[in-house]
Amino acid sequence: MLEKLKEDVCRANRQLVQYGLVFYSWGNVSGIDRSSGLVVIKPSGVSYDALKPEDMAVVDLEGRLVEGDLHPSTDMPTHLELYKAFGQIGGVVHTHSTYAAGWAQAGREIPLMGTTQADYFSGAVPCTRSLTVRETEEAYERNTGKVIIEAFEGKDPSSVPGVICRGHGPFTWGKDCFEAVYHAKVLEEVSKMNFITSVIDPDARPLPEHIRMKHYSRKHGPDAYYGQQAES
Amino acid sequence: MLEKLKEDVCRANRQLVQYGLVFYSWGNVSGIDRSSGLVVIKPSGVSYDALKPEDMAVVDLEGRLVEGDLHPSTDMPTHLELYKAFGQIGGVVHTHSTYAAGWAQAGREIPLMGTTQADYFSGAVPCTRSLTVRETEEAYERNTGKVIIEAFEGKDPSSVPGVICRGHGPFTWGKDCFEAVYHAKVLEEVSKMNFITSVIDPDARPLPEHIRMKHYSRKHGPDAYYGQQAES
Amino acid sequence: MLEKLKEDVCRANRQLVQYGLVFYSWGNVSGIDRSSGLVVIKPSGVSYDALKPEDMAVVDLEGRLVEGDLHPSTDMPTHLELYKAFGQIGGVVHTHSTYAAGWAQAGREIPLMGTTQADYFSGAVPCTRSLTVRETEEAYERNTGKVIIEAFEGKDPSSVPGVICRGHGPFTWGKDCFEAVYHAKVLEEVSKMNFITSVIDPDARPLPEHIRMKHYSRKHGPDAYYGQQAES
Amino acid sequence: MLEKLKEDVCRANRQLVQYGLVFYSWGNVSGIDRSSGLVVIKPSGVSYDALKPEDMAVVDLEGRLVEGDLHPSTDMPTHLELYKAFGQIGGVVHTHSTYAAGWAQAGREIPLMGTTQADYFSGAVPCTRSLTVRETEEAYERNTGKVIIEAFEGKDPSSVPGVICRGHGPFTWGKDCFEAVYHAKVLEEVSKMNFITSVIDPDARPLPEHIRMKHYSRKHGPDAYYGQQAES
Repeated sequence: MLEKLKEDVCRANRQLVQYGLVFYSWGNVSGIDRSSGLVVIKPSGVSYDALKPEDMAVVDLEGRLVEGDLHPSTDMPTHLELYKAFGQIGGVVHTHSTYAAGWAQAGREIPLMGTTQADYFSGAVPCTRSLTVRETEEAYERNTGKVIIEAFEGKDPSSVPGVICRGHGPFTWGKDCFEAVYHAKVLEEVSKMNFITSVIDPDARPLPEHIRMKHYSRKHGPDAYYGQQAES
Repeated sequence: MLEKLKEDVCRANRQLVQYGLVFYSWGNVSGIDRSSGLVVIKPSGVSYDALKPEDMAVVDLEGRLVEGDLHPSTDMPTHLELYKAFGQIGGVVHTHSTYAAGWAQAGREIPLMGTTQADYFSGAVPCTRSLTVRETEEAYERNTGKVIIEAFEGKDPSSVPGVICRGHGPFTWGKDCFEAVYHAKVLEEVSKMNFITSVIDPDARPLPEHIRMKHYSRKHGPDAYYGQQAES
Repeated sequence: MLEKLKEDVCRANRQLVQYGLVFYSWGNVSGIDRSSGLVVIKPSGVSYDALKPEDMAVVDLEGRLVEGDLHPSTDMPTHLELYKAFGQIGGVVHTHSTYAAGWAQAGREIPLMGTTQADYFSGAVPCTRSLTVRETEEAYERNTGKVIIEAFEGKDPSSVPGVICRGHGPFTWGKDCFEAVYHAKVLEEVSKMNFITSVIDPDARPLPEHIRMKHYSRKHGPDAYYGQQAES
Repeated sequence: MLEKLKEDVCRANRQLVQYGLVFYSWGNVSGIDRSSGLVVIKPSGVSYDALKPEDMAVVDLEGRLVEGDLHPSTDMPTHLELYKAFGQIGGVVHTHSTYAAGWAQAGREIPLMGTTQADYFSGAVPCTRSLTVRETEEAYERNTGKVIIEAFEGKDPSSVPGVICRGHGPFTWGKDCFEAVYHAKVLEEVSKMNFITSVIDPDARPLPEHIRMKHYSRKHGPDAYYGQQAES
């Protein structure tokens, strides 16, 4: 079942290595088939070199294994919470990419300092709070999803397609698994740029709002004019 | 038309990837044919892997598409302003290269700290001001060109072949599209060197003027003696 | 003798280059055969490109050469001290990897700031004290092992599989030579992440204990549920 | 003439690219044949890809071209001063490698913080003073050599095989051109390590003298025991 989605998710997982976002097995990509409500996700602890489409785990939104011989990624319950809360997304990525994790460890949101970020994110990338002892003991991975959702109260996850989890690392999403990987790369790159900026000038100011909105809307929404989409 | 220039511009766009200056479609190169006043530029949002000479867009200096099936780069009006104001240049490059963008986000000119920069730039690399709300709404990309030109009042764009746009990233230029790419790489590299220097010593001083001018004039102008040019 | 172990140790030494952990001959891997008490180790000063299994040196726990035409690594006595003191380990790695060496030169333990580290280390990575003049003159490499062991008084080397030696660089270990290399890569990566974090916020706090223990125990011990091990 | 040396110098120049020490034509390697007093050096402004042994320039110690169709490197007079003053060296390298140039721009010597440096340098890497206006105008490249030699008054260039020129970049040397390249790589790597250390702890102390001397003498001098040399 879902052979095309398994191929896509497998390929998207391998992109994490190509784009320098993961070492070893430090990341995972999933994709959802909204019509059946089934999620395809990387198996746990398997290296990317060896990954084949048929290794992918298929689970339902309650986390029950529907197909596959291997355990799904340990982070699977976090992915599922995101799919349930953010109805418009089709793919989710988790990594420990270096600069994004550096910000996550500092417990700071990633401020929107420039147009590189504004081309994909309409504002700062939020940082979640830490989980409480109870949340950690009870259901760590599921509650990781819940604190992400909490951090998006009043925010639109479509226009801010990623988050950093305090003391942990980034999750990103998109309309499909490839866009989710794309956003993971953007997030790592802007994490590095903003690190450089904050060293050069610790008091550097965020991008003015009118330029931020201009860049975001050049690429997104009804007035977008970037790329070749206007030809259709 | 302009088959040779299309090949050159296509190849120069691919160099951005080889030199580590862009991810995805985050940059663009153009070249001008001064005799016809036509500009060849990368199409918008197309990845470098897939880029072929026949994909290049040909526009006139008013931005009208003269040849090509694809939309030109969104940043095209910025390139055109530069070609109109800086009559001696033959190629323009825009990237979001990491360290140069880091300085641009800090809103600081890149000081001339050493001979690496002095070999290609006769002084600091200016940083533009931000566009106003009106300039942004009216014609963002064209006005980006205009604030660059404003930053060069009283400066010679031939001897300072690049700029960083505040909150955005670098533009560089040269006698042709390949030299413009070369300057984009120089600018990224000196942005990194100067970042390192400013961390080691926040009060580090610019290179003394006599050494700066010596290095610049070793490579440029009537007394140049670097390379093999003196053999002709 | 020990043909399989020589192949493994040779391959693990080459992984140091693949993972960007060493230049030239700046590192070494060994493995122990606990039944015979013999240690297989890289020869001294030989580059990784040229390394063949038959070049490996075989020594006993007193450092006597048992087999091999080449001198064992100069750091061999340090490896032996670790094998003697830490009975449960099967492989040892030494490198001068850049960020870990940067922390070692600062003489600071590497604090546990995030889950990347907590997945493999149950706490901070200790930094040894400097050797005294006497310890240096008497038996530098052996005493390097002894100050590592001193730094682990009251600590479990199985749950903190690495150390940085003050002014020098990291040693890591594991159940075999491949796991020791794996930990060398983890240590370098978290050294970089923690460097970034400490620049963004010099007062950043370590990961809360309950999250640290959760991540460590997801992967280690009787309640581990990461990877495919639960299937057996 | 000197066919073997031309091959070696050509290959050593290409190593600069392989080891990530240069972009474009930003560096040069030379070697000397002490019996004839002739120096083989890279031609000026030629890219490393295209470099062939027969392109090498051969000059005498007064800088007169003895063989070759191409101009020697602009930095040739600096190389010659070093060969004349430091009678024991056989190869010289100049680069603009990023971290070493970062320190050079800060005008600071590179302190000896750890054993990575102590394995090749018996102490800090000096930073020259700036050239005066007169020295710059009169004979910039030759006087660059002279201020290097001035910085080594009372120091042994054999045990500190490199220097950084203020506001410029590193020069290194060795018994032949390959060792000079090796030292250029060591210098870049320790420049990066020491940068990291100085960020983690701006008050970090140099390596204690007894450890510094131990590491240096493990590899150099009559009591060296690193590598395979003791077998002969």
